[in-house]
Parts: sequence; structure tokens; C-alpha cells
Amino acid sequence: MEHNIFPIHGQTLTRQDREHLLRQRGMMIWFTGLSGSGKSTIAIGVERELYQRGVLCMILDGDNIRAGINSNLGFSVADRTENIRRIAEVGKLFVQTGVVTLACFVSPTNAIRAMARDIIGEADFLEVYVSTPIEECERRDVKGLYARARRGEVKEFTGISSPFEAPERPALSLDTSVLPLQESVRLIVDMVMRQTEKGKTTNMTE
Amino acid sequence: MEHNIFPIHGQTLTRQDREHLLRQRGMMIWFTGLSGSGKSTIAIGVERELYQRGVLCMILDGDNIRAGINSNLGFSVADRTENIRRIAEVGKLFVQTGVVTLACFVSPTNAIRAMARDIIGEADFLEVYVSTPIEECERRDVKGLYARARRGEVKEFTGISSPFEAPERPALSLDTSVLPLQESVRLIVDMVMRQTEKGKTTNMTE
Repeated sequence: MEHNIFPIHGQTLTRQDREHLLRQRGMMIWFTGLSGSGKSTIAIGVERELYQRGVLCMILDGDNIRAGINSNLGFSVADRTENIRRIAEVGKLFVQTGVVTLACFVSPTNAIRAMARDIIGEADFLEVYVSTPIEECERRDVKGLYARARRGEVKEFTGISSPFEAPERPALSLDTSVLPLQESVRLIVDMVMRQTEKGKTTNMTE
Repeated sequence: MEHNIFPIHGQTLTRQDREHLLRQRGMMIWFTGLSGSGKSTIAIGVERELYQRGVLCMILDGDNIRAGINSNLGFSVADRTENIRRIAEVGKLFVQTGVVTLACFVSPTNAIRAMARDIIGEADFLEVYVSTPIEECERRDVKGLYARARRGEVKEFTGISSPFEAPERPALSLDTSVLPLQESVRLIVDMVMRQTEKGKTTNMTE
């Protein structure tokens, strides 16, 4: 790459500088929905599609969060809140780096999602409700969790023994029992590209 | 940008895919040293210089960590350890995204830095010891903390009432009372570029 092609606007680099380097806008796509609804499957598809357009993404999910930064948290009410708080704070750092960040967590209540939105900031928070009905999620039962919850082996399992509150105004609502995967992926990719264009005409002008 | 210019090697994107997109290698530059030694000043200089070469960086420091993800931690021994554990876990996620990550924390003991190294992984962890003598750090006293510590207002202040263990085998050791800032910056930038080239000949071949 050429030297000195990225002008810096001040002493310390800003989010705008990083977005300019990446030629994209940082944002959080927050997937909420029942276990097995298809959150991660859609996110993986979105990441693939955006990658092919040269957009840098990062997926935050149980695999890299519960095994890492949140490995010292359990499933009490307090720990579930702290789980989402930390995820939102990590997500905010990624958004500030200019990364399109995809968070895939059940996050079952309006209160817990409002907290995440407050931390990340309204302008950068796009809520995607994966609204697949519980019957379909339970039929899939990818991780065998529904069977265990029905046997009473998993306490406070969302949808079985603990409520899920549907988001009131999600940016998108996708029922994967009806919508083909590629269609869900396309809707989110289009939304990201629109947000990126919007960013270019406001924040990213030089 | 052109479509389909980034081939994907599997179903889920890997760190290598992201590094390929960014044309850089993710790594952690871990700055350790006394308060006022110059950790953040050097990191800001490194970030500026790498930005001009088109390299995406992110600085993790007290400003964005203690105010965010670690806002619920104090300064007890347990909390200081948890502080560094979380920083290392966040840093690991950034490294896996392909970002050159600069962490600026006193991190005064070999044990605490060994924990960070273990979490992030030996191959991605470059320790930079900012070895500026305490007399010079105290003379600068940018945040007025040394004066407060001398008055006994800050408990267990590293260098005054709590020990600092010098790293045994840092990748670089920089005394900013002797070395001009631009020289410290140059040494780290050269190290990052060397690591990036190394990455290209091993991991990043197609």
C-alpha cells in the first residue's frame, strides 16, 4: 500500500479515521430470538456475504464469549444481565473500531436489550428479531437443549420455563420457518449496505 | 469494491480470512510500565504511523476499558486480576479479527502478564516494557497520581507502595527518558511490520 494515503484529523485516531481506512461503517447487528431460531446461521451467512464485498465483520456468540470473557459467569439473573452487559461493552469497542459486529444471543427481555442498546448507542444498534416459532425451534433442537429443558434438566430455559419478550420495534423480523436462509441474509446485507452509504454521506465526508 | 474478490476457505470465516481481507496480521502489543512511563503516548504514535501505512489498530487503555467493560471492578487484588483477565479476553477477540491491538496497562507483575499471554497466546503476544525510571515518571506526574500516592491518598500505588516487576524477556524495552518518542514508535512499527511479513509467508499463503 502507498504511504500517507490516510490523512489523520487529530492527534488521536478516531472511529471516523478507522471507518475511513476500512471504507465501511461500524455498527452492531443484535440478533435476538429463541435457542435454535437461526440467529447464528443467519449471522454466518451475513458475514460470508459481506466478506465477499470486502466488509470486515466479527461475530460474537456463545462460542467465543461464554468460553472467554464470560467464562466466570453462571446463569443466575444477575449473571445473565452481566453476560449481556459485557457483550454490549465488547461490541461497542468493535463498533468504534469500524467493524460490522454481529451479536447472537437469546437476550430474552426488553430490559436486557434496552441495556445493550444504551451501552452501544441508538445510532449504531440494529435489532434483528429471529422470530421462528418455538415449535420449529424445538423440532430442530440442534443442541438437544429443548429435550433437556422438557425433562427439567435445564432451569429457566427461555420459551419453556422462562418467558421470551418479543422486541417491540426491531429493525428486521425474520421467521426462518417461512423465509429461506438466503432471503434473511439478503435483507440484513441490504440493511448494512444502506447504513454504510448513510454513514458515507454524513460522518465519512472529508 | 469488486464482488467475489475474497475467496472463503470454509463455511465459517476464520481469522485468516479476516487477515487476508485486511492485508495485515492480528497481534497484541502489550505495553507494561509505571504510570507516566509513556505507554499510551507511544501507542498513540504507533497507531498514527501504522494508520498511514493502512494498518488497522485499536488501543485498549484505562479510558475505554475502566469506563466500559470493567466499570464494575475496583482495585482489590482480585479485581486487578479480573481487570487484566477481561482485557486479555477482549484483546484476543480483536487479534482474532485481524486487528493490531495495543494494550496500555501498568500490569505490574510477571504473574498477571503471564495470564494475559496465556489467554492471548504466545505467538500473538508481544510484550513492550516501557522502562522509564520512576524518578522521571514522578517528575512528569501527568495525572497527579504520584503526588496523591506520596500523600497516602492512593493505596497500593505501583512504584510507591506496591512493587513493579520488570518483565524478564520483553520483545522490546524502551526508556522514554533516553529514547526520543519517534524512535520508540519506529522500533515498534518495524516490529509489527516484520511480524506481518512473517504472517504472510506462513499463515497467509493461498
